[in-house]
Amino acid sequence: MKIAVMPGDGIGPEVTREAVQVLEALSLPGLTLFDADVGGMAYKRHGHPLPQETLTMARESDAVLFGAVGDPDCDGLARHLRPEQAILGLRKELELFANLRPAKVFPGLEHLSPLSPEKAAQIDMMFVRELNGDVYFGDKGTRIGADGSQEGWDMMSYSEKEVTRIAHVAFRTARAGDDKNRVTSVDKANVLETSQVWRDTVIKAAAPHPDIALDHMYVDNAAMQIITNPGAFGVILTGNLFGDILSDLASAAVGSIGLLASASMGERQSAHGTFGLYEPIHGSAPDIAGQGKANPMATILSAAMMLRHSFGLEAEAARIEAAVAGALADGIHGGDLGGTHGTQAIGEAVRERL
Amino acid sequence: MKIAVMPGDGIGPEVTREAVQVLEALSLPGLTLFDADVGGMAYKRHGHPLPQETLTMARESDAVLFGAVGDPDCDGLARHLRPEQAILGLRKELELFANLRPAKVFPGLEHLSPLSPEKAAQIDMMFVRELNGDVYFGDKGTRIGADGSQEGWDMMSYSEKEVTRIAHVAFRTARAGDDKNRVTSVDKANVLETSQVWRDTVIKAAAPHPDIALDHMYVDNAAMQIITNPGAFGVILTGNLFGDILSDLASAAVGSIGLLASASMGERQSAHGTFGLYEPIHGSAPDIAGQGKANPMATILSAAMMLRHSFGLEAEAARIEAAVAGALADGIHGGDLGGTHGTQAIGEAVRERL
Ligand SMILES: CC(C)[C@H](C(=O)O)[C@@H](O)C(=O)O
Ligand SMILES: CC(C)[C@H](C(=O)O)[C@@H](O)C(=O)O
Repeated sequence: MKIAVMPGDGIGPEVTREAVQVLEALSLPGLTLFDADVGGMAYKRHGHPLPQETLTMARESDAVLFGAVGDPDCDGLARHLRPEQAILGLRKELELFANLRPAKVFPGLEHLSPLSPEKAAQIDMMFVRELNGDVYFGDKGTRIGADGSQEGWDMMSYSEKEVTRIAHVAFRTARAGDDKNRVTSVDKANVLETSQVWRDTVIKAAAPHPDIALDHMYVDNAAMQIITNPGAFGVILTGNLFGDILSDLASAAVGSIGLLASASMGERQSAHGTFGLYEPIHGSAPDIAGQGKANPMATILSAAMMLRHSFGLEAEAARIEAAVAGALADGIHGGDLGGTHGTQAIGEAVRERL
Repeated sequence: MKIAVMPGDGIGPEVTREAVQVLEALSLPGLTLFDADVGGMAYKRHGHPLPQETLTMARESDAVLFGAVGDPDCDGLARHLRPEQAILGLRKELELFANLRPAKVFPGLEHLSPLSPEKAAQIDMMFVRELNGDVYFGDKGTRIGADGSQEGWDMMSYSEKEVTRIAHVAFRTARAGDDKNRVTSVDKANVLETSQVWRDTVIKAAAPHPDIALDHMYVDNAAMQIITNPGAFGVILTGNLFGDILSDLASAAVGSIGLLASASMGERQSAHGTFGLYEPIHGSAPDIAGQGKANPMATILSAAMMLRHSFGLEAEAARIEAAVAGALADGIHGGDLGGTHGTQAIGEAVRERL
């Protein structure tokens, strides 16, 4: 089991370090870890946020553990050299088309939600966001527009094949999930042709999944329902752009983004399971980088997701998750949760409880 | 002063009727009202959701008072015949490029917000959303994609001219507004060329407005901040698509969408002021249509916005707003606010308090 570790920028290195130590503490036989440069630090060292060596290492690995990218020093660079391109490039080059992001309030942490306690308690949804298509990866550029001034343009599109494969992930995820057996597909079919194809294709893809309830919601309405009626959602199936916005919204509604993990999966099978990239959903937080203040729990939970989804190590994943839950219950809270525990102290607390 | 009244579908006619009676109760000299068909009902009568006669009447008016469009009977129609095309068509044909949407919690109604009371009390922001461009109005269609399957596509773009004019509206609105003197421009410049032009142009447009603080936020972050830190926003400047999502999100955060009005303004000046279209932000609510249950307050407040922005009748606008606030304070609440008052009773209560 070969894991490529990509700490990246800002708080990425410090939170990744704790997650790696958690993995090492499990003493899994045959587990090897390699470091790779990514993001702004990779640009500074190698002139590119996603160096060829990093991509090659990812391709030769069974999974990637990713920290965060984003560095204010790089704000002035051309877009293709900016740190975010590393994560976009990894998703595209490795065909990681399915982003799985749970949004669920941890028991006892309801008070951290910006929602009223009654709404907060209802939050328990899973995003399945498409990552390889949409306006993210279409042609784009600048040109002189119809009105004679310079304009920026981006092509949005989704094909039936792209939608079908992500829709099946959503239906399977809904079945594997708890109890709701519900998929809500989000689009803007009243305005966009891309969305009309999306909606028609999702309906077709639903045929082999008659046990899963499917409904469709416009993206503006979905944004409203996520905060007014969160309990109505099971799996939320979205394109790349709408998923970016809505999954962050749901994470903010949870109120503890320092605890939220995510998996980006493709179809490539390794000897051990499905290749995937695992990352905390918080960013590089340059304002607190290097101060030992960042909460590593989301990265530790990302490592647990990795053991489960890429290596089929359910028991070990559950061990990590229980250790995190135990630490939280014992009041080991980072600054983001209103506590005073630092990065290392939290990592140690989790390892002690393994 | 000629007003085109477009009741539209679902609850549109019943809420518009009350707003019209409020206007009539003011006995404004020289005010004339004309009815025009729009939406699903216009399709049923005339074969088009925005008949030429309706467009002509709008062009010959000084303002439009709009109810709502949307009719489940029309779900199966080709997109260009669906009710929503009426509002999109009016915005485009009349060059109503600036949507102004306040999101503010009414005193005493904080408990209706899905946010915690502490966050809810902070909500006081104004959206300035561009309405004539973006992926809404670009070329669109279907074709065989690179992977050999059918794909839907939509062109997203913004030109410097389009961005400049909406940015100036935002800066002027921030100056006219309360105290914050702050514009937050929303984009996804880390991914989209359209957003890069948007951001660069907003920065240029800010030069003549040095008294207004300007910042930039990615759309995913904006969705988070609107619920976690609502008090940080003054004016939120957005493109058409991001504004659709975020302004609805903010309205849901307020918790009483039956009270929220909006104005869509262009540059055309009439003898009395600036031409505009005024509508409640709630939709046609077909589930409660015709039952006398709908809350007309948002439409009544839209009529007040019309008097202010299109006719310069500040005192009369304030009279209506005070009457609505008085009715609310006296416990005249529609079902959407947890009360039992019906459409007509609310309309009468407002008129009694004028
Ligand atoms: C950094 C950015 C390009 C990225 C995205 O928009 O996908 C991020 O917001 C995310 O959701 O992982
Ligand atoms: C009905 C729809 C086309 C419209 C939009 O997306 O602009 C609506 O959601 C709105 O915000 O007025």
